[in-house]
Amino acid sequence: MSSLLVLGGARSGKSRHAQARAEAIAGELVFVATAQAFDDEMRDRIAHHIADRGPRWRTIEEPINVVGVIDREAAPGRVLLIDCLTLWTSNLMFAERDIATEAKALADAIGRAAGPVILVANEVGLGIVPDNALARRFRDAAGTINQAVASAVDEALFMAAGLPLKLK
Amino acid sequence: MSSLLVLGGARSGKSRHAQARAEAIAGELVFVATAQAFDDEMRDRIAHHIADRGPRWRTIEEPINVVGVIDREAAPGRVLLIDCLTLWTSNLMFAERDIATEAKALADAIGRAAGPVILVANEVGLGIVPDNALARRFRDAAGTINQAVASAVDEALFMAAGLPLKLK
Amino acid sequence: MSSLLVLGGARSGKSRHAQARAEAIAGELVFVATAQAFDDEMRDRIAHHIADRGPRWRTIEEPINVVGVIDREAAPGRVLLIDCLTLWTSNLMFAERDIATEAKALADAIGRAAGPVILVANEVGLGIVPDNALARRFRDAAGTINQAVASAVDEALFMAAGLPLKLK
Repeated sequence: MSSLLVLGGARSGKSRHAQARAEAIAGELVFVATAQAFDDEMRDRIAHHIADRGPRWRTIEEPINVVGVIDREAAPGRVLLIDCLTLWTSNLMFAERDIATEAKALADAIGRAAGPVILVANEVGLGIVPDNALARRFRDAAGTINQAVASAVDEALFMAAGLPLKLK
Repeated sequence: MSSLLVLGGARSGKSRHAQARAEAIAGELVFVATAQAFDDEMRDRIAHHIADRGPRWRTIEEPINVVGVIDREAAPGRVLLIDCLTLWTSNLMFAERDIATEAKALADAIGRAAGPVILVANEVGLGIVPDNALARRFRDAAGTINQAVASAVDEALFMAAGLPLKLK
Repeated sequence: MSSLLVLGGARSGKSRHAQARAEAIAGELVFVATAQAFDDEMRDRIAHHIADRGPRWRTIEEPINVVGVIDREAAPGRVLLIDCLTLWTSNLMFAERDIATEAKALADAIGRAAGPVILVANEVGLGIVPDNALARRFRDAAGTINQAVASAVDEALFMAAGLPLKLK
């Protein structure tokens, strides 16, 4: 495996599964967090996650330029775990970036990565059509990015109740 | 394959996958659109989709009587692609049709179709229970139709991030 | 099979599938209903479900203490069908129980059950993040319970349009 997408719903065990897969690969472990600490509660949660992952992991916080991180950090003997693409999508929308362009750039970066890359993403399109237009745009953006990444990776999983279904 | 259901969420790649499957079958291509053009924006989108599919496709617009279209148009050497059943469900509810009766009529029409039929549908039941009663009724109606169709077709797929899982 | 989780969305055919699996096992059939009859409409629906299942089934109503029912009722030659864990989750939240503790207790009860146990649960985490905090807490709680149960059972299925995908 050199690249893996772990897709799933809220509390489907995506992050835990992705982390276990990363830890099963020998080498350095780098966690790329796309979450942004806007307030103390968020800062506490991020600190808590870092402590949970333990000292084997180095954490990089990058809300927007995930492509730059892959280009710079991917290397043989080092696993990048990017968690998660859905927050990244939300950050991109807030920054008014073009989603199709970013989706293609990410897929290209995965294709040329010099080492293993694992990406976590939420599936958000399986409920009722949202009432508000922003939520509908977000749902479309997340789906566009998920499709681009799924087509670029070597392996893709759909998680439900902590268990993986093999998409690819 | 003589009948296929492509089920999935918003932006899961359902329509593209269904279209590719139809184009892989030798013969005439007929697109049955259940969307209705209520305004100029919708008319533009429909025109855009027709242009995207290209000259190999003939398009029939039918918001309600999908069963009649299958009975009349299905033929050996001609593929019908019905996109999508979830908009059809919504049209049926608006027209105050009985969902169980329509679901059974569609399943029967698929069973007796004289040529290949591909159907696209949304899965909408995997989010939080919607607040409003109409959305809950719609969710139940879509699920009833999806189950009836899934039981009638020869093959059924669940799409996530553009990749198919085989249901049947 | 001694324990089975049937996971799926609204109107995905979960209950029907679970019931058919239970009826395929020789022996006594016990239905554990977690729904509560707060009003006449609900009482009518419950009575209707009992009539639908027919005389082979004995029904136990238990909104909270599902663990106690498993410990007391599970026996060789008797199938317990618990429908559904998502209503149970909602009952637990209303009763202000600790979800992680309850999830672990249920998983342990499944592990030590003296006879076959089939559990039905909703997947609710695959739509857009809900606006309101209670719905988000509920979604997290349901996911926590689904993961605990999925890890305890011998077999787990994800239903879509009435068709099962094998998770485990």
